[in-house]
Amino acid sequence: MPESFSRRIVLLTEGNTEPITGKTAVSVLRYRPEEVVALLDSHEAGKTAASVLNVGGDTPIVATLAEAPSADTLMIGIAPSGGKIPAAWRTIILESIGRGMNVVSGLHDFLSNDPDFVAAAQQHGVELVDVRKNNERDVNNRLGLREECLRIHTVGQDCCVGKMVVALEITRALQQRGRDAKFIATGQTGILIEGDGCPIDCVVSDFISGSTEKMILANQHHEILLVEGQGSLAHPRYSGVTLGLLHGCVPHGMIMCYEVGRTAVHGMEHIPLQPLDRLVRVYEEMASLMGPSRVIGVGMNSRRLGPDEAEAEREKVGNLLGLPVCDVFRDGPDALAEAVLQMAPAAVS
Amino acid sequence: MPESFSRRIVLLTEGNTEPITGKTAVSVLRYRPEEVVALLDSHEAGKTAASVLNVGGDTPIVATLAEAPSADTLMIGIAPSGGKIPAAWRTIILESIGRGMNVVSGLHDFLSNDPDFVAAAQQHGVELVDVRKNNERDVNNRLGLREECLRIHTVGQDCCVGKMVVALEITRALQQRGRDAKFIATGQTGILIEGDGCPIDCVVSDFISGSTEKMILANQHHEILLVEGQGSLAHPRYSGVTLGLLHGCVPHGMIMCYEVGRTAVHGMEHIPLQPLDRLVRVYEEMASLMGPSRVIGVGMNSRRLGPDEAEAEREKVGNLLGLPVCDVFRDGPDALAEAVLQMAPAAVS
Repeated sequence: MPESFSRRIVLLTEGNTEPITGKTAVSVLRYRPEEVVALLDSHEAGKTAASVLNVGGDTPIVATLAEAPSADTLMIGIAPSGGKIPAAWRTIILESIGRGMNVVSGLHDFLSNDPDFVAAAQQHGVELVDVRKNNERDVNNRLGLREECLRIHTVGQDCCVGKMVVALEITRALQQRGRDAKFIATGQTGILIEGDGCPIDCVVSDFISGSTEKMILANQHHEILLVEGQGSLAHPRYSGVTLGLLHGCVPHGMIMCYEVGRTAVHGMEHIPLQPLDRLVRVYEEMASLMGPSRVIGVGMNSRRLGPDEAEAEREKVGNLLGLPVCDVFRDGPDALAEAVLQMAPAAVS
Repeated sequence: MPESFSRRIVLLTEGNTEPITGKTAVSVLRYRPEEVVALLDSHEAGKTAASVLNVGGDTPIVATLAEAPSADTLMIGIAPSGGKIPAAWRTIILESIGRGMNVVSGLHDFLSNDPDFVAAAQQHGVELVDVRKNNERDVNNRLGLREECLRIHTVGQDCCVGKMVVALEITRALQQRGRDAKFIATGQTGILIEGDGCPIDCVVSDFISGSTEKMILANQHHEILLVEGQGSLAHPRYSGVTLGLLHGCVPHGMIMCYEVGRTAVHGMEHIPLQPLDRLVRVYEEMASLMGPSRVIGVGMNSRRLGPDEAEAEREKVGNLLGLPVCDVFRDGPDALAEAVLQMAPAAVS
């Protein structure tokens, strides 16, 4: 997506302008604000992005595409379980195509496989971009990994807890300290933000590790790689993606991410979450099947807490696990950036 | 594949008539012998299947399709890492299409995506069957599992150790005892043998567990399900497939499969295998994230050993793990069938 910085995006979040299902919109607002002209959600029209999502400043929420006449791109702003396009959105997508807008989607249901969308796009000369579409067909070989390149991987207690933002925030903190750090995007939102990466959860399952290793090999000229995690080893639906990714990037260190107050698997309220200390053991055991690896810090998502509660939680979890803990938004990512630098060869010398 | 029993198959194993890369051919010879008229391998032409593969009796190995004029189906008999069609075989595939034969393949490279094959098939009115082709798009829900249906899953130290044959042989042993057991095929060869199933390693990775659960829900009217395993939790390439499958079928019991004498990962000679006792702990830990589960027996593949060595190995591993051990071909599957029946509710009553 080399042209991405010249886009003028309307983020489609109709009925889902909230931080979980709408996490793609939230992250694009946070990390590519210069590209977003409006959000489209008739239920919240007239408000600003910041007033509903705590991010995005004065970016307006509009009820119709006609209210954002300068936009040239409609971006699907949600990431629902299963990745299907809600039926009600088809009308909006077709309208945007009719207005000459390109459409960008990170869903499993590809726009470019839909005869109606394809015909309309041809008629109006616009582009349909399916970020998850790929043809990965390489297995990994575990050869040629440069051990001087430090590989750090964010892992999680659940999906949708903040593995991407923790990796992004640590990458930026390291870059601000003059280190050559690179964010490795493994999901549709990360790819939309970073401009490269691989949609691991949409790769044919035999090639999860292979497509991950390919990204590592292509980027190991950097000093430090921060590999975005997916799902959880304890997630009934996505644990296979998580393990393939873990074994494809063979991390030297892992950052455990969780959301305070969540007790059940996201989208599966009948399945309780596993305790953090058990999961630290499980991740270390599974990673160490490939090579030495340990959890070096904890990314706490404390969005539901007040400042005092958050500080108490941070102390409690730090004592339980004996690891540095921070909420990268509330506390900044410094504690985690420090933990990473303690593993970096150049920091030792 | 309802028509499968009327096929007259030539198994294409050119240059690979051996038990590992040619494992699809070996298994079709073993479990569907009535369908196979010849093997095609110019390097072994004139010999019988049994003399090269120890299975398949007098089935001839031929050098050309003209030597098997009654055949109506060419089946790709290999399962190489990565699943690509060897370039040299294209000529043979096109010739078989020219002779009016259907072509069946379990490879990742789909015949039906190849313009040359598609054009030839249309011209000659034959069918291209890609066993791995699928459009699985369902996540699992962990709802509605019938706990009276016993779920047994074969797992492995490595890929290509015999997880499919152990599941098949236990299924048959249970059926011979009058039990309602069903083999759940999860790979291309198993599907070719059983006539149904899902090619888990070719499903989009977000849906590994979902497509597995779908098979369980569709078959849990049976008393006992034997779910074919894939890869290994310690396989650098395929561990994601293995974990997605494990968490999709939530087995009550697991059978650990291994090949005696193998020391490195199949196809990755620089990666040593993990010890069996460590892997038993790892499988039990990962399975128990979803529900109580334990390893109840060991399927030993002792094809490289003589009878005395095999018996010594069986005793050694049985003592190490405290579990029943058998080579399902050498010893028969009775010890494992017994271990399964000890878990079956009907066996208790």
